Amino acid sequence: MNAPEITKPVMRPYLSATAHFAAGEGSPRAFLERCLAALDASEPTVGAFVTLNIEAARATADESTKRWRAGKPLSAIDGMPVGIKDIIETIDMPTQNGSPLFEGFRSERDAASVAALREAGAVIVGKTVTTEFAATEPRGTRNPWDPARTPGGSSSGSAAAVAVGAISVGLGTQVLGSILRPASFCGCFGFKPTVGAINRGGSYDGLSQSVHGPIAASLPEAWQVAYEIARRAGGDPGFAGLYGPATPPAAAKPRRLAVLETDGWAVATAAAKRALEGAVAKLKSAGIAIAGRPDSEQVTAVETAIHGARELSVAINAWESRWPINTYRARDAGKLSKAMLDRGVQAEAMTLEDYRRAIADRDRRRAIYHTLADEFDACITLSAPGAAPIGLGSTGDPIFAVAGSMLGVPALCLPVLNDGGLPLGLQVLGFAHRDAALFATAGGVLEAMKDG
Amino acid sequence: MNAPEITKPVMRPYLSATAHFAAGEGSPRAFLERCLAALDASEPTVGAFVTLNIEAARATADESTKRWRAGKPLSAIDGMPVGIKDIIETIDMPTQNGSPLFEGFRSERDAASVAALREAGAVIVGKTVTTEFAATEPRGTRNPWDPARTPGGSSSGSAAAVAVGAISVGLGTQVLGSILRPASFCGCFGFKPTVGAINRGGSYDGLSQSVHGPIAASLPEAWQVAYEIARRAGGDPGFAGLYGPATPPAAAKPRRLAVLETDGWAVATAAAKRALEGAVAKLKSAGIAIAGRPDSEQVTAVETAIHGARELSVAINAWESRWPINTYRARDAGKLSKAMLDRGVQAEAMTLEDYRRAIADRDRRRAIYHTLADEFDACITLSAPGAAPIGLGSTGDPIFAVAGSMLGVPALCLPVLNDGGLPLGLQVLGFAHRDAALFATAGGVLEAMKDG
Repeated sequence: MNAPEITKPVMRPYLSATAHFAAGEGSPRAFLERCLAALDASEPTVGAFVTLNIEAARATADESTKRWRAGKPLSAIDGMPVGIKDIIETIDMPTQNGSPLFEGFRSERDAASVAALREAGAVIVGKTVTTEFAATEPRGTRNPWDPARTPGGSSSGSAAAVAVGAISVGLGTQVLGSILRPASFCGCFGFKPTVGAINRGGSYDGLSQSVHGPIAASLPEAWQVAYEIARRAGGDPGFAGLYGPATPPAAAKPRRLAVLETDGWAVATAAAKRALEGAVAKLKSAGIAIAGRPDSEQVTAVETAIHGARELSVAINAWESRWPINTYRARDAGKLSKAMLDRGVQAEAMTLEDYRRAIADRDRRRAIYHTLADEFDACITLSAPGAAPIGLGSTGDPIFAVAGSMLGVPALCLPVLNDGGLPLGLQVLGFAHRDAALFATAGGVLEAMKDG
Repeated sequence: MNAPEITKPVMRPYLSATAHFAAGEGSPRAFLERCLAALDASEPTVGAFVTLNIEAARATADESTKRWRAGKPLSAIDGMPVGIKDIIETIDMPTQNGSPLFEGFRSERDAASVAALREAGAVIVGKTVTTEFAATEPRGTRNPWDPARTPGGSSSGSAAAVAVGAISVGLGTQVLGSILRPASFCGCFGFKPTVGAINRGGSYDGLSQSVHGPIAASLPEAWQVAYEIARRAGGDPGFAGLYGPATPPAAAKPRRLAVLETDGWAVATAAAKRALEGAVAKLKSAGIAIAGRPDSEQVTAVETAIHGARELSVAINAWESRWPINTYRARDAGKLSKAMLDRGVQAEAMTLEDYRRAIADRDRRRAIYHTLADEFDACITLSAPGAAPIGLGSTGDPIFAVAGSMLGVPALCLPVLNDGGLPLGLQVLGFAHRDAALFATAGGVLEAMKDG
């Protein structure tokens, strides 16, 4: 393993810092300056941001400071430094989609989630690096724990920037593993909400499994940011939006968890498997019942239902990407990666009838998974097959995250495991629309993991 | 009534013209030139287009001519002159949304429906006038039947351009009445598909009831255009897309129709009411059973379920428009109409919980309507309360079209009625995902109306 070239990264949670702002101890501006110092120190190595707007961030933080002093913050996240994945539109910065086709492109508006964050007083520091169109092709960000490794993707910059404490929360999106994988590799909390729970208006993640979610420095701020967005922007049009309370759900020790292997087990490292087995032992010793493939027919049925989740998701994504790949290719095929061109070819080998079968199959699998909801508080598994792999040519394997994406259920990455001293996330998966219950359970899991 | 200032408009169906192209009788280029002559004659009065790209249209028509000559058209609509509502992105023309905020805005890509039309060989003549963001504020297009009157909206230019024969099909969108109303006022065929049936990627109609659909010179080309788009672009991501055959469904005389009054009956003109009653009599005399409010408890229950469809739809649209109105207003409120600013205010008086109740209420109403599917082939009513009203300050009342929008079901406007010599559409409403059956029934209705 390489010797780390930078200091071990330390995240910077915001919510816990706000308690004394009204009394004049600390301020959003002072908090931001610490973030910016971390950013200055890490950015030359990590490269988490594609665009920064420091001047606007400082001005917004100053306004927030005044509001906290006056006892009138706009929300619990007023003044929180955040980063926005660069497939999500911002009125004050370009939205470049990790693609030379969008170099310098300005939509002249904020996406729904960004407009909501601004209304809540959040301080938008910059646009974070995404892979090309939030798909496969990496765009150079390095892992803050070891710059020889990938930070994961596609929300590469959001995770890396949170890991180094340059922001408290980075907005990401996930259609296969693009929130949970980078959160796992960078040692952050990652929250992929129920599909449809956060309005994607003004974002370039139009695929049916895709959803916006926070990569965060703590579990409570993951909830709070998602809540503040949904309250103001709702879910996708026609969807009920994120359900849950105005403050982070209190931790609740689960009674019963299902442990899933998923298709990832076959490729997980020995250390990662030991880490999950260790977590299971710890949770059991805390009095939590855990059932897995050998003990439970129901869990076995779910393992079968999520088998092939990646192949199914890739096919669904391909058809749904037929557009816009066709118009981007017509414009300038030379500016698309081979991976993107290959996806276009896969799409054109499919028919609408193929796609219908795929989404019907997805519905069938979702229904089987949902049978667990009466018996279990949540499911647990790994967030990734191991630590971030060495090399920047790939953002790693999404295999552990893709089941939750295909199922459309909420999922959390808790950075409580490790693989050879590098971060590895414990994944907790909930049930559709029960995002708040998932947070309560995840809080209980965190406490049990600490107690052990 | 004003004396008409222009010749009575004549539509220009394309499909019937293609039969002899392969043999060298006529050609897409020759067809286009007749369209362009009609456009030249009408456009100074009507103002249907906001942007034209005649040079590209001629070049595309020439390519199509070669393909027909070679017996290798790309599709049945290869060479068809079409117009694109200016809320739908085009790579070669700006997309201005009927808003000064988008003056000259270029997305540098085609929307999914436009990319599909190009793949099918369609000739895109230009961008057609829309009201501001496909909502309320008119943008000056005049009715070709009487330039003192509105063409309807929001797909104002698409309907007017089809009516004068400048294009065979205009792509429109409908969230309240934006396809059926202008089709009715301009004497065109209008098709609002099942919600979700046509991919809206790259279009600015993100509301949950909104759907793309053709305004067309004939019933078969309304089907064919929708089919050719759906085959290549699918439906909205996660939706099954338009179901139905590769050629226009053959006419089938319905056995039983329900006649709906809707909330529109209270404001319909006497002549419009007589026109519908005349149609009902004609259909009955053709041997079609017709049940209405007085005869059928089931129809009465549906009348109750669609009562207030406009108010419910307006509330749903308002919440779903909270974004982007908030970001447009932050950018330059002076460039938004009072109607749009008022919608923003309505949105901000709502909560996410209000919205959830509204969409749950919509689901409840949809289920009641669907009970008709076992008993009736389709429902009929008016497409509008009467002829296009005089004046350009409003695009008229969507009250007859809004029930179908709220219900998410396919609906057709058949230009077979009149009110004082001006066009009025008979509306035929079907059942979700049974768009092809609706076309067959509408074909049967058309034949029965002719026979009478």
